[in-house]
Amino acid sequence: MRVFDIITKKKRGGELMTEEIKFVVDGFTHGSIPPEQMSALLMAIWFRGMTSAETVDLTTAMLKSGETVDLSEIPGKKVDKHSTGGVGDKTTLVLAPMVASCGGTVAKMSGRGLGHTGGTIDKLEAIPGFRTEMTMAEFISTVKNHGLAVVGQSAELAPADKKMYALRDVTSTVDSIPLIASSVMSKKLASGVDAIVLDVTMGSGAFMKDIKSAVALADTMVEIGEATGRRTTALITDMDEPLGREVGNASEVREAVEVLNGGGPSDLREVAVALAGEMLYVSGGASIEDCRAMAAQSLDDGSALKKFREMVAAQGGDVSYIDDTSKLPTAKYHVGVVAREDGYLTSVNAEKIGLASMALGAGRAKVGDAIDLAAGITMMKKVGDFVKKGEPYVMLHTNDQTRFKDAQIILQDAFRGGDKAPTSHSKVLARLEKDKLEKLV
Amino acid sequence: MRVFDIITKKKRGGELMTEEIKFVVDGFTHGSIPPEQMSALLMAIWFRGMTSAETVDLTTAMLKSGETVDLSEIPGKKVDKHSTGGVGDKTTLVLAPMVASCGGTVAKMSGRGLGHTGGTIDKLEAIPGFRTEMTMAEFISTVKNHGLAVVGQSAELAPADKKMYALRDVTSTVDSIPLIASSVMSKKLASGVDAIVLDVTMGSGAFMKDIKSAVALADTMVEIGEATGRRTTALITDMDEPLGREVGNASEVREAVEVLNGGGPSDLREVAVALAGEMLYVSGGASIEDCRAMAAQSLDDGSALKKFREMVAAQGGDVSYIDDTSKLPTAKYHVGVVAREDGYLTSVNAEKIGLASMALGAGRAKVGDAIDLAAGITMMKKVGDFVKKGEPYVMLHTNDQTRFKDAQIILQDAFRGGDKAPTSHSKVLARLEKDKLEKLV
Repeated sequence: MRVFDIITKKKRGGELMTEEIKFVVDGFTHGSIPPEQMSALLMAIWFRGMTSAETVDLTTAMLKSGETVDLSEIPGKKVDKHSTGGVGDKTTLVLAPMVASCGGTVAKMSGRGLGHTGGTIDKLEAIPGFRTEMTMAEFISTVKNHGLAVVGQSAELAPADKKMYALRDVTSTVDSIPLIASSVMSKKLASGVDAIVLDVTMGSGAFMKDIKSAVALADTMVEIGEATGRRTTALITDMDEPLGREVGNASEVREAVEVLNGGGPSDLREVAVALAGEMLYVSGGASIEDCRAMAAQSLDDGSALKKFREMVAAQGGDVSYIDDTSKLPTAKYHVGVVAREDGYLTSVNAEKIGLASMALGAGRAKVGDAIDLAAGITMMKKVGDFVKKGEPYVMLHTNDQTRFKDAQIILQDAFRGGDKAPTSHSKVLARLEKDKLEKLV
Repeated sequence: MRVFDIITKKKRGGELMTEEIKFVVDGFTHGSIPPEQMSALLMAIWFRGMTSAETVDLTTAMLKSGETVDLSEIPGKKVDKHSTGGVGDKTTLVLAPMVASCGGTVAKMSGRGLGHTGGTIDKLEAIPGFRTEMTMAEFISTVKNHGLAVVGQSAELAPADKKMYALRDVTSTVDSIPLIASSVMSKKLASGVDAIVLDVTMGSGAFMKDIKSAVALADTMVEIGEATGRRTTALITDMDEPLGREVGNASEVREAVEVLNGGGPSDLREVAVALAGEMLYVSGGASIEDCRAMAAQSLDDGSALKKFREMVAAQGGDVSYIDDTSKLPTAKYHVGVVAREDGYLTSVNAEKIGLASMALGAGRAKVGDAIDLAAGITMMKKVGDFVKKGEPYVMLHTNDQTRFKDAQIILQDAFRGGDKAPTSHSKVLARLEKDKLEKLV
């Protein structure tokens, strides 16, 4: 087998065989196939796409390139959720305890923030003492005893994906649905869960900018999940403005606790209930309607919050910070962005909010950068709200005053206003399960 | 400027600017742009193509990546011919003296053989004493004194092309018309000539397999030549079977001398007259018809042969080998391929003939391999000839008997026979000059 022939076949529109895909992934991972041949193949895939069979084969080959986590010691169906990335997305903090409090089993490996999107692990570290690094044995016993645990990824899952992603990142081959889908799914499958819920975000803060491509990506990922024996569903959710009001780390924990207390911003609650409902649905026998009702109930009766306290305690965190979230880190400096005239906020560029939050210190431009847990942005107004002239609609927070300038430059043109409120709609735009697509908006 | 953005632009179908193309070619040549980014861009170009402006910019950037030859000391219009590669193609040996004997000025840098195609420099070295390496001063003075010289390329012309070609060769991005055209033309423009004739071969022994792509390639190259101020025309010639009867090195010199003597195979004479006519046409004021007539006349009146003797002498070769070509190297061993039944030879796979000739020792698989000047293949029969059962239609020659086996394996399925002679046609299929295409067959 020669990689040259495989590139040629794909370039001409042919379908690659299982063995050919395995040969390429293994060869690239181990260095026998040089990056210049791999990038030519990736670009050919960008143009030609991949069939379902090819995409499943690619995912499987990447999955098998490294370690896989064995969660079989934990009884029941282990469920995970993956988001394709958003701004102000603290849903994991809310829905993991929701699902666990309803009897689901959440064994979750999360990442750190990079670029304009935050990461659950960074957010949890705003709680003093909270341990995001655990041995596999500790992780498994925590999930067994409490029904949930959220940790950073320790084992080297799908190293082929890591190497391929680095190459795609410099060769303009990231934005390919089969390549995105196989990248996400190879890591999820390697993490050992039985059922997967995908949150495919769409809009200015997300990778997918339109419903057509978001549905195509969701569909491909559901197909991969089901083809490899995992119950998988997906929601397309709106990421045209940040989710909730807070973008940052400590501030997002604070907002998540508000929702767990039965309050908080309605968009965040809506998305968390929908995703938790899906996680319960793929975990077991109940109908999707019943699952959603159970999920909502867990917020209203305090059981989800109780489960969150239990998780924080189990992972070494100081629960007094949950009971009184004002104890969580807050920034020294605050600057508001005020309206120059009366009007409705009609759109927010969520990606720019994410980048400005990063500039304030809340995120990192490259792996390993330090972050300021208290930095971030508060959306004082959401899209559809009326703003009076001189009223602040956004508030910037940081511990380093010199950072305001960069953030303000990024935020230029991040907002649009108008005389009429835009029509509001559900944040959940569509739902996919195997062979079934419901458009909800 | 970032190469990432340039890849993205091309991938999405945008047109690259002069500065962007220069940035990429310079960066890749000097190592600041890594091969994996270049190969992604090349694959995007394979899919999207290039506009005329982009192709001219690419050619110019490659041309400027290295030295260029200054032939301005030589009076008159210096003309060159380039073939996109063929089997048994000894036209340079014939037409260079034809053109010079008619008053044209031929300052030709040629290459060595590689893969299934031979090289003029190797062929000339079959003449004892013939010097293919000269200083630039010697080259210029030879052309000034005799109207012609044929030497190997010494200066490093268009190093960007060399590096890009090596990358294209392993990433399946060779077969792209703008990339082929810019590769050929960058080297031709760097060699300092004023007018260029392109022999775009088509058929089983050529890179272009159909008339449409051959015309597209010819058109692109003519456009580049004219855009950079060189009179340029192109012929599409048939390379479905080897040109003439001889494939090898010494044997091709022998056959070229036959044609220079007014004899030889009619297809070789036809192509040589057509190309020499074009070279005279782009050199000066006469009509194409008059130029062709002058070219043919030079074969019939002995002036071309006289000029060839003059060139051989000027370049240190022993002219007694021209006067008596039986003195040129001949092989020790000969094996014929005989017909298994009566019939017409209907097709020959010229590429396989070239590869078999290489296997017999006449060519090299990689740069630097030694060659056997006497090895090669004689086409005892040409397409359209009748062959009796038991009669040899091809004869293999080598000094190393162990080589026959590989050659015979390659030649399996290289020939087709039938009950009816195929219709014969001119070897010159089409002619292009600026804004003008004549289909001749």
